[in-house]
Amino acid sequence: MSTPDHNTRILLDSRPHGEPTPDNFRFETVPVPAPAEGEVLLRTIYLSLDPYMRGRMNDAKSYAAPVELGAVMEGGTVCEVVESRDPGLAPGDIVLAHGGWQEYAVAPARQVRRLDPARAPISTAVGVLGMPGFTAYAGLLEIGRPQPGETVVVAAAAGPVGSTVGQIARIKGARAVGIAGGADKVAWLEELGFDVALDHRSPTFRDDLEAAVPDGIDVYFENVGGHVWDAVLPRLNTYARVPVCGLVSHYNETELPAGPDRSSRLMTAILTRSLTVRGFIQNEFVSSHYKAFQADAAGWIADGSLRYKEDIVAGLDNAPDAFLGMLKGQNFGKLVVQVGADPTS
Amino acid sequence: MSTPDHNTRILLDSRPHGEPTPDNFRFETVPVPAPAEGEVLLRTIYLSLDPYMRGRMNDAKSYAAPVELGAVMEGGTVCEVVESRDPGLAPGDIVLAHGGWQEYAVAPARQVRRLDPARAPISTAVGVLGMPGFTAYAGLLEIGRPQPGETVVVAAAAGPVGSTVGQIARIKGARAVGIAGGADKVAWLEELGFDVALDHRSPTFRDDLEAAVPDGIDVYFENVGGHVWDAVLPRLNTYARVPVCGLVSHYNETELPAGPDRSSRLMTAILTRSLTVRGFIQNEFVSSHYKAFQADAAGWIADGSLRYKEDIVAGLDNAPDAFLGMLKGQNFGKLVVQVGADPTS
Repeated sequence: MSTPDHNTRILLDSRPHGEPTPDNFRFETVPVPAPAEGEVLLRTIYLSLDPYMRGRMNDAKSYAAPVELGAVMEGGTVCEVVESRDPGLAPGDIVLAHGGWQEYAVAPARQVRRLDPARAPISTAVGVLGMPGFTAYAGLLEIGRPQPGETVVVAAAAGPVGSTVGQIARIKGARAVGIAGGADKVAWLEELGFDVALDHRSPTFRDDLEAAVPDGIDVYFENVGGHVWDAVLPRLNTYARVPVCGLVSHYNETELPAGPDRSSRLMTAILTRSLTVRGFIQNEFVSSHYKAFQADAAGWIADGSLRYKEDIVAGLDNAPDAFLGMLKGQNFGKLVVQVGADPTS
Repeated sequence: MSTPDHNTRILLDSRPHGEPTPDNFRFETVPVPAPAEGEVLLRTIYLSLDPYMRGRMNDAKSYAAPVELGAVMEGGTVCEVVESRDPGLAPGDIVLAHGGWQEYAVAPARQVRRLDPARAPISTAVGVLGMPGFTAYAGLLEIGRPQPGETVVVAAAAGPVGSTVGQIARIKGARAVGIAGGADKVAWLEELGFDVALDHRSPTFRDDLEAAVPDGIDVYFENVGGHVWDAVLPRLNTYARVPVCGLVSHYNETELPAGPDRSSRLMTAILTRSLTVRGFIQNEFVSSHYKAFQADAAGWIADGSLRYKEDIVAGLDNAPDAFLGMLKGQNFGKLVVQVGADPTS
């Protein structure tokens, strides 16, 4: 492949106040950068879009530094090596990188990981076999610690994290109750083998949840917050564990909701029911659990006990709209932008 | 000792609405009960008064069943065996029991534990060597897990739990910051060797706390809630642990505080800083840790690294007022009612 001469990329142009809009992003076209010694030039094939990116758009203390204004939006990517100045990688190699929202990126060779296209579709490296899958695995098994016969409830259950959480819960012998928005997602969760799947948009949602958990809830994997959490909290059993992975319903909040202040009631529930509420991001568990995850997940996919769905959007131009839609729950499956041709498919 | 003929006891007469009052209690005098086969008749020497008892006065789901209306208020006691119908105990033995707010109680012999008066003052069996001491030990070491050099902050630090938490934190090589109400309690914490002691009633409390934790807070042992928790939360470090042992400032709440609703902000802090917030009561850890606690605590008391203070009130008649005062922070040291003569002192 000849070296290309221009790179289209998407910058953070302004910080959102509340819900992000297309105006927060800016496209630009710049020359393709040249790799230095020890670096590689990468062509983006797939760009992962994930809810955590909403947090990076804020200028607030979070678990990671914000994206600077005028900088390329960050994100995990699956790329083809176009040019290599490192002996460990060659043009044509397919790698997992953190190239961001752009067509080309330069990265140190040691910061990318070579993928084996014969092992699994390469897009899964940012999905079920990548960060979202590992988030589900580590959060559920290390914090949630479901025991056989226990009840695990997961929010945003049709998403790449939630669908994996529910399926691993079942693999471990627990009951899995999934909560999602919309009939198509609920139907898919039933197809995946969730014991119960509930639509949080239903007017009878609270009653539906109560009926779905006759023995209460032992593990609640939190992705959303809001009215789903409000319905779950009263049903948590003594010693229940709550891995807090995301709070997508609150990401666009610009001010605190009206009162009364229920924070002391939340603390009282934690006290009187000996609850464990534990925030996390997957980085924390990489060194201790990533290898086991790769082996377990590959085995479960091979034997059919772990299934996944991808929502692939064509073209970098569509990344902002796809991202904004995801924050409203409009995607169905792991949201990935196909930025360039996939030579493996 | 001849068998006595009447027993004065204190019943729960009505449930408090908000702050309890003396009217919630009722004294009555009844015949002393007779022990059945396998039981002992106990004379109360010391009655422990503890904040958890406030929760038992409510008719609400908590970690233990409420005290029934018309039933004797429950509580841990140190007693002398007056009459025994069990071969394992003899009159004159001193035992730890759960005899409640009364002069005499009957209990199955297997539910009491014989104390060795030569080992420690027998009142410590409901204090530093008993439930409060074990609460501090298990909550700090199993949930807080302080590492050398980390900063541990404890609320209600002059109480029997808090003062033990801070001293064990220092034994384990952590910095201990104690928060208490009033200059006398602050002075005592400094005497105990806390690195910093703060008065939460001071108008400069928030600034004082900020200055006291230049490296943030790694463990916060929660006993109180309210404005102390509000000052602590923004200073918790990534991966901080919060054992939630009590929320005494909220026990008398009859309705939720006015808004805005800060519960989503609390969950966001848990998420973005990978916090662990974990409610507990000591029962959970008895089988796994009680023996180690007894050995460790006795050793620390013997070598002077663990000190304690008792606030002994004379006479069962004064139990209700002493209890109500404790809920307002008026005691100083482990609150114990001396109900009858102590033959060991």
